[in-house]
Amino acid sequence: MSQRTRIRRLPEKTRTQRAELDAILDAALVAHVGIVDDGQPYVLPMACARDGDRLLIHGSTGSRTMRLMAAGAPVCVTVTHLDALVLARSAFNSSMNYRSAMILGTASPVTDDLAALRILTEHLLPGRWEKLRPPTRKELAATSVVALPLTQWSVKVSDGPPDDEPEDLTANVWAGLVPLETTFGAPVAAPDLSPDAPGPSWP
Amino acid sequence: MSQRTRIRRLPEKTRTQRAELDAILDAALVAHVGIVDDGQPYVLPMACARDGDRLLIHGSTGSRTMRLMAAGAPVCVTVTHLDALVLARSAFNSSMNYRSAMILGTASPVTDDLAALRILTEHLLPGRWEKLRPPTRKELAATSVVALPLTQWSVKVSDGPPDDEPEDLTANVWAGLVPLETTFGAPVAAPDLSPDAPGPSWP
Repeated sequence: MSQRTRIRRLPEKTRTQRAELDAILDAALVAHVGIVDDGQPYVLPMACARDGDRLLIHGSTGSRTMRLMAAGAPVCVTVTHLDALVLARSAFNSSMNYRSAMILGTASPVTDDLAALRILTEHLLPGRWEKLRPPTRKELAATSVVALPLTQWSVKVSDGPPDDEPEDLTANVWAGLVPLETTFGAPVAAPDLSPDAPGPSWP
Repeated sequence: MSQRTRIRRLPEKTRTQRAELDAILDAALVAHVGIVDDGQPYVLPMACARDGDRLLIHGSTGSRTMRLMAAGAPVCVTVTHLDALVLARSAFNSSMNYRSAMILGTASPVTDDLAALRILTEHLLPGRWEKLRPPTRKELAATSVVALPLTQWSVKVSDGPPDDEPEDLTANVWAGLVPLETTFGAPVAAPDLSPDAPGPSWP
């Protein structure tokens, strides 16, 4: 953790364990990728997957963000999971519980697109890669993956019950957490799915 | 929609109706706020709520992002909802369905912090404001809210079933959508909640 990623606000929420970073990234389907173009920041959601000590980010060869990243522009990649609404006894102490990771650095194109696509696909759709035909040369050319090293990062976690002022504890109002849960719904078959196709076997 | 927010990739996914922007923002608990400091982008999750033709963003008076925003730095605020995993018959066409809004511009501090906090609280915790004591002067001083006008924005929506190559349609693999659903779990009372306190009445 460097000076630039030192957490200034609420430093008690800072986590410095690499395992906490990995857990947040490994639970993510998308990251919000920030890049600067001519002084203007742009933030885009992009698919991501951790590959050891780097984060793979997947985009289209032609996108501005991918082009700027591949060209070495400074990037900030943030992953956030919302865990609960925190209903305190005051508006001021009401908040949300979350886990958030921010990675700064410079990304670079991966050298082995096929291996990177496999890692991304297996992260987002576990078990799926082996069931699908391999990408064609044309498809590989139209895809690009960059990797951002996990060297300059910070993790912030807000958890636990509401933290109220002592004088608010007797307020005649409910207080606690309302958990936020993200789950998979029942699979919806493609309209053109062959009746002979196997079942969804998901997850 | 200006040149800067014109969507370059997959323009068929572009939505230009203001109602679509509003729906995405109104379903959001957090936005990812991008700001530039000394050439480095930073992306932070922050609570947000739409107030008519502007987006309110809530932070702490001392945070770097809030200070830079309040000082008129160019900002990009992105809200993303993931709706489904898209299991196509190829890795290349596999993707996610999502709704995403990006707003560019310059934020400014709101003049009426109390009114803004009420809108934010009611957006995040509907019905809660009236049950809570009013913020103290000290609490108001420690909070800051900025507003970003909804003038320069773009919305991108990916929905519908997998879009496979014709030659892949006979592949012996399931294809379709796996919906992603975010729901509220059962409320968890604060450990110091008085036994006399009312029930959670949530949502």
